[in-house]
Amino acid sequence: MPDTTTFDMTCPLPSADATHVTLAHGGGGRRMQQLIETMFLPAFGNPLNAARHDGAVLTFGDVKLAFTTDSYVVQPLFFPGGNIGTLAIHGTVNDLAMCGARPVYLSAGFILEEGLPMKALERIVQSMQHAAADSGVQLVTGDTKVVDKGSGDGLFINTAGIGMIEHDLSIAPAGVQPGDAVLLSGDIGRHGMAIMAVRAGLEFESMIESDCAPVYPLVQALLDAGITIHCLRDLTRGGLASAVVEIAESAHLHIHLDERLIPVREDVRGACELLGLDPMYVANEGRFVCFVPAAAREDALAVMRSQALGEAACCIGEVSADPAGLVTLRSHIGVSRIVDMLSGEQLPRIC
Amino acid sequence: MPDTTTFDMTCPLPSADATHVTLAHGGGGRRMQQLIETMFLPAFGNPLNAARHDGAVLTFGDVKLAFTTDSYVVQPLFFPGGNIGTLAIHGTVNDLAMCGARPVYLSAGFILEEGLPMKALERIVQSMQHAAADSGVQLVTGDTKVVDKGSGDGLFINTAGIGMIEHDLSIAPAGVQPGDAVLLSGDIGRHGMAIMAVRAGLEFESMIESDCAPVYPLVQALLDAGITIHCLRDLTRGGLASAVVEIAESAHLHIHLDERLIPVREDVRGACELLGLDPMYVANEGRFVCFVPAAAREDALAVMRSQALGEAACCIGEVSADPAGLVTLRSHIGVSRIVDMLSGEQLPRIC
Repeated sequence: MPDTTTFDMTCPLPSADATHVTLAHGGGGRRMQQLIETMFLPAFGNPLNAARHDGAVLTFGDVKLAFTTDSYVVQPLFFPGGNIGTLAIHGTVNDLAMCGARPVYLSAGFILEEGLPMKALERIVQSMQHAAADSGVQLVTGDTKVVDKGSGDGLFINTAGIGMIEHDLSIAPAGVQPGDAVLLSGDIGRHGMAIMAVRAGLEFESMIESDCAPVYPLVQALLDAGITIHCLRDLTRGGLASAVVEIAESAHLHIHLDERLIPVREDVRGACELLGLDPMYVANEGRFVCFVPAAAREDALAVMRSQALGEAACCIGEVSADPAGLVTLRSHIGVSRIVDMLSGEQLPRIC
Repeated sequence: MPDTTTFDMTCPLPSADATHVTLAHGGGGRRMQQLIETMFLPAFGNPLNAARHDGAVLTFGDVKLAFTTDSYVVQPLFFPGGNIGTLAIHGTVNDLAMCGARPVYLSAGFILEEGLPMKALERIVQSMQHAAADSGVQLVTGDTKVVDKGSGDGLFINTAGIGMIEHDLSIAPAGVQPGDAVLLSGDIGRHGMAIMAVRAGLEFESMIESDCAPVYPLVQALLDAGITIHCLRDLTRGGLASAVVEIAESAHLHIHLDERLIPVREDVRGACELLGLDPMYVANEGRFVCFVPAAAREDALAVMRSQALGEAACCIGEVSADPAGLVTLRSHIGVSRIVDMLSGEQLPRIC
């Protein structure tokens, strides 16, 4: 029997029981999931199972709130289509939206590195102001820390958010049911390739801009139309593939996707091919999947397409009972294969 | 007229309109206040005036919640009396307590540096679990990011917290009134000197341990006893002096303190003298000031002293109308002087 530990083609990364933190532990894929499941969940107990959703749902009397947090460490701080500040607002309001919550209040914690130009901070703070206004949220509390030069990387931002849940749906992976349609809100891969292009100094024929945007208006339109949403998930680190695999595993159901139905812009596809990346694993910051009963599929698509952000919305697959916990993908050449989460770190510090 | 810009003894630090971020901008004193007032408040508008309090008070129907956030960047990660994890829990629950809120839920955002030993992370996470249990809060949602080696400093943690306000008092700087007594919950300077000693490799006769602790039980005891609390403020970065100056400025009142009434442990005083530091400006993580009507002073002190954490509680001064916005201190030798905020950064990365 060959020694698979010394030469394992399927997993060229540190093992799950790594003695030290690796970039893969922050990649949004399998390694991060293992870190959460072996380190954080045992310590913090069941409530943090919310980590498998995009936020926690809290009840205070008749009031139902969603609560979520994300830190942002993207490099470079400025990129086509946004900066770390817009990301810090949109990322967190999108996590609230994925709980079916209307984003209302945010906190902002800044970790500044000594030597950061004030002008850069000012531009970022102004972007946050605009992004917050666009997203209908108020920044109500904050914190500022400064670390010595060499102990940070310009600027890290954490935002936590509170949103109001104003409906009786239970929107979570556990709500997904066999027969559900899998809807995607638009084309994938733009945020990751925008960052990658600027970081690698690549110039493509057209500038790829991040898709960074607040998605709550689309969710609200679906709710207002009375669509029975079973689950929502935004496609950030780890991309479409990792998000859908996590849902299949949480829901113990089979999700079948059709690659031919998944929109990828030509310039994004070209950039991915050049760099040997699969768009299925590339990060997005303004895209989500939505699980609805098959009977609601066309209505839901019509609602999504009625808004600019959702005009390319499409159905990319469906849910069935077996094989439970697996995602399969029918590829461009008609072959079906099993899709796994991102196992390592494709693009470090993408958000 | 002498050129005060080239040799200004009172302000040997970068000017307020610095072109780059300096450590002083995170010191909890004047420079940080200037950064908040010139950068964050204009962008984020009035609601972030909550930044002058320890958190924001949010109303949802009949439900009144406090919401706060802090990032923790302390070095070293482990110190006598705690670690960055205990600090991240106690610091944020204490900010909620200072709003008069019962801490209920926390989020935790981890920024890990590639190469951090898993064992260290595990110890810290377990400390957080214990600290959360001690504080009566649940960690309900989280996030993990990893930055490449050299772009962080082991571990930064952000926590945001939600607390319930279950009384009708308005506890804030604006609530302070002439005649109020200024109560201090215990001796000052231990957290800062514990960090300083270990960082500088100093060994004193006795080990100085951080005072890091959750203070809500003291606040709850005061509320349960029907004490009319006007304002609460924990004494973190910038120490007692900066906290009281900020309140005097916010409330447009005069606060007079008596240095002889302010408890400082002998070993802490000795360490401060050795290092040329004033305990009034040294950070604490389990101490707060409480403003109450003079008539409630003795009752409030009795309540505080009935608990271990408040056994050294004392009255250290009083509030009057004029000179508005100023803090004065009667020193050990009986001379009164004006107290200002920490103007620079006495001990960087203390929390």
